[in-house]
Amino acid sequence: MTVETIGALGLGDMGGAVATALKKSGFNVITTLAGRSAATVDSASDRGIKDVGGIADLVRESDLIISVLVPANAPEVAASIAAAAGASDTPITFADCNAIAPASAIAMGKVVTDSGTHFVDGGVIGGPPRDDYAPRFYVSGPDLDAMMELDGRGIQVVPVGPEIGRASAVKMVYASQTKGIAALQAAMLVSARRLGVYDELISELESSQAANLERASSAVTRLPSVAGRWIGEMEEIASTFESVGISGGFHQGAAEIFRLVDASDTESAKSLDDLVKAFAAAAT
Amino acid sequence: MTVETIGALGLGDMGGAVATALKKSGFNVITTLAGRSAATVDSASDRGIKDVGGIADLVRESDLIISVLVPANAPEVAASIAAAAGASDTPITFADCNAIAPASAIAMGKVVTDSGTHFVDGGVIGGPPRDDYAPRFYVSGPDLDAMMELDGRGIQVVPVGPEIGRASAVKMVYASQTKGIAALQAAMLVSARRLGVYDELISELESSQAANLERASSAVTRLPSVAGRWIGEMEEIASTFESVGISGGFHQGAAEIFRLVDASDTESAKSLDDLVKAFAAAAT
Repeated sequence: MTVETIGALGLGDMGGAVATALKKSGFNVITTLAGRSAATVDSASDRGIKDVGGIADLVRESDLIISVLVPANAPEVAASIAAAAGASDTPITFADCNAIAPASAIAMGKVVTDSGTHFVDGGVIGGPPRDDYAPRFYVSGPDLDAMMELDGRGIQVVPVGPEIGRASAVKMVYASQTKGIAALQAAMLVSARRLGVYDELISELESSQAANLERASSAVTRLPSVAGRWIGEMEEIASTFESVGISGGFHQGAAEIFRLVDASDTESAKSLDDLVKAFAAAAT
Repeated sequence: MTVETIGALGLGDMGGAVATALKKSGFNVITTLAGRSAATVDSASDRGIKDVGGIADLVRESDLIISVLVPANAPEVAASIAAAAGASDTPITFADCNAIAPASAIAMGKVVTDSGTHFVDGGVIGGPPRDDYAPRFYVSGPDLDAMMELDGRGIQVVPVGPEIGRASAVKMVYASQTKGIAALQAAMLVSARRLGVYDELISELESSQAANLERASSAVTRLPSVAGRWIGEMEEIASTFESVGISGGFHQGAAEIFRLVDASDTESAKSLDDLVKAFAAAAT
């Protein structure tokens, strides 16, 4: 097959930049904006991504649909794709590229393939594509041909086997470290503040763990802008760990601290100290 | 008061080196070996630390007793000190320098002070003392005079206020990061192995997280020799976080992974890959 038209679902920071990169690489990129926020409609319009109407229209016109969303919305989208299947004459491919547990990908894959649509399990590692940078889309499943056509055209595509769930597994274990450490460092700083030993901790870290303190400071400073959409991903990682007999506690804890960050008023915070004060003052 | 004789409880890697450093600094350092393992008896003898008999003898002969043990043994030792109090004519000082939650230190302090003994809450940050290096003993409580006499004599002593619990709080939040990150990285590697995507993870980390991979490798390689005695400390950290409304999940997870490491057969492991294989094969 040859992919000409790509349906893009999810036009946030990552999904929007991916849609733009694929368009620049010569694909016809379309989307559906039915029921979407004004911000999403503006983003699509800014990027020149055509709105084709409803999900049935998207399924009919696309050769390949890629979904880059927050995990909580992923199953609903997959179900709507499955419900609209048959709108296209030949089977299209649906690639779920969200940060979900392997078991979630397997369940989603069943719904999608039962409707006669090819399913690709995907997981994105790296930041949004730029002119000089392409994130890696790990993909697994029995039908990878359509996704492989995107490799080197705005994104990198890395196949990791024919079983649904393997690409999600790579994404889950990878994200467990980067985002988990940021959460742990935020938890440490908020606990220190609430225990009344924040200044003593910072001064000890400055003298014996300067590099870790610097990493903590940069990770924690970034949290207010990302914590909200990382909550669901932490829950998926916890469930992934538990599926192989490892404690989900780390990432249940991470989800909880991201909820706290998301609920805190950091508007006027100008330093790490201000941010930690704001987190510590938020209700849990 | 002037401290001449120090009773040292706990002659492991840290406690033993502290006893030696204090002895070299001119203090008379004694211990009790009643009921101790052959290894502890040998360690005391190698270090020239005099065994005075039972705990009552130790209390009678010491001006100051310092306890550096694994957290699980700390309350029992404090109770035995309290029971032996009165064996000395003037009140002595007992410094608990174990890694325990502030609430545990407060409970222990009550038992000890009720018996007429001064209580110091302590927490050690850093490695065992050497000729050119002195770890920091954070201390808090109303009676710090005896401990302050040790500052600069093999160890550093850092006072952080008159309330029992503050020194333990500093130790807990500090250790939450260093040991928590090591546990998280081990959990990531074991999960990847059990999910069958270990090679994919390592190759992704090599290309995009080389520094984190190196830190993970060095932290995880060290775990088999320390995991067993870090389990209790992780549980104390979990309870410390929970006491201020932060999830204990991170460190309950860390305790669980240290239990797995401690139960694994790493005898013939020669590389990070071998170690992770051994951890992943252990029963949870």
